[in-house]
Amino acid sequence: MAEEVMLLDFWPSPFGMRVRIALREKGVDFDLREEDLSNKSPLLLEMNPVHKQIPVLVHSGKPVSESLVMVQYIDETWGGRSPLLPSDPYERARARFWADYVDKKVRLGRMVWLSTGEAQEAAKEEYIECLKVLEGELGDKAYFGGERFGYVDVSLIPFYSWFYSLEESANFSIAEECPKLVAWAERCMQRESVAKSLPDQYKVHNFLLELKKKLQAQ
Amino acid sequence: MAEEVMLLDFWPSPFGMRVRIALREKGVDFDLREEDLSNKSPLLLEMNPVHKQIPVLVHSGKPVSESLVMVQYIDETWGGRSPLLPSDPYERARARFWADYVDKKVRLGRMVWLSTGEAQEAAKEEYIECLKVLEGELGDKAYFGGERFGYVDVSLIPFYSWFYSLEESANFSIAEECPKLVAWAERCMQRESVAKSLPDQYKVHNFLLELKKKLQAQ
Repeated sequence: MAEEVMLLDFWPSPFGMRVRIALREKGVDFDLREEDLSNKSPLLLEMNPVHKQIPVLVHSGKPVSESLVMVQYIDETWGGRSPLLPSDPYERARARFWADYVDKKVRLGRMVWLSTGEAQEAAKEEYIECLKVLEGELGDKAYFGGERFGYVDVSLIPFYSWFYSLEESANFSIAEECPKLVAWAERCMQRESVAKSLPDQYKVHNFLLELKKKLQAQ
Repeated sequence: MAEEVMLLDFWPSPFGMRVRIALREKGVDFDLREEDLSNKSPLLLEMNPVHKQIPVLVHSGKPVSESLVMVQYIDETWGGRSPLLPSDPYERARARFWADYVDKKVRLGRMVWLSTGEAQEAAKEEYIECLKVLEGELGDKAYFGGERFGYVDVSLIPFYSWFYSLEESANFSIAEECPKLVAWAERCMQRESVAKSLPDQYKVHNFLLELKKKLQAQ
């Protein structure tokens, strides 16, 4: 088990995507184990007994969970190559602040595709407002941290794979609302680490349509 | 402004208490500015334009917000004295995981004092379950990280100042449910950094009673 790296994951999970991207940025080989969330594996329950959720990184038999904790662990463990967090403590605090903002806000996207009518309109407005805040922080920089792809980019870019489905569900265009943010996302997609880690947006859309049907039938 | 450290704060805030404790652990002098949350200062709105919330640490004119981000910033900036996070990346990931757990779960406490009847009973059960998970993680150790007071302790101990009020509101005893956790809290209270940063539990209770009246009148 010396340097074995395993990722317990589920393909449409933006949180799993974060970890895939971070591992690929570092050039770490890993064994990706797809979980069936309706029938979680004994390994998942053993490795994340508190939350019982994917993703879980298992490094030499030891588990790490919570995606942002995992990305920081990966950065600190395989630090030499492509550092994700800035070396300056103040810049590191800023990066952590924005990744935390992403964590707190982007889950609003769920309400955009799951709700209907007035609730959906309200969720859409709030979601767009958050994306605009993020676009404001990005400004004219290539990446959130400046010239180099880093921690905030890793935390946010996975949600790009859900954009198409949100736009289809709620009839709006994120590119019209936030052109710089979409240009940033397309820039990130040029990276092999990102392109290999994000699923096709149409596949995500079909998955979410099926999931919505199931949730609404319950 | 060279090394000026200012904390925009509000005394009953467990999140503010985290930052007070961390600064005091490091022996950093700071100017504590009490905010009136019904009439936020222009400085607060300028320093935390995204969330407009306390606490905010202003170090040499530069703001840091989100309490766990602040505690990590303090640890990295004044690192030499009383390190809060472990030096090993895996142990650091574990500490971040548990601080994140505290962040996600302890806000359940709000439902314990604010709700009534069946909703309150359900909130109480869930809250006790979370405390038991934390107690399980603590085990027989002196502190969450082992022998030394650290990051998880800083993230959790502020909520101890709310325990009395929760117990009074929902008629239960945390010491009966989680004796080791309460013994840990009393151990933490022996530290000057903690004792100076946590308000009196009866004062918190009176504050929460007043706040509840206001919220219920709305």
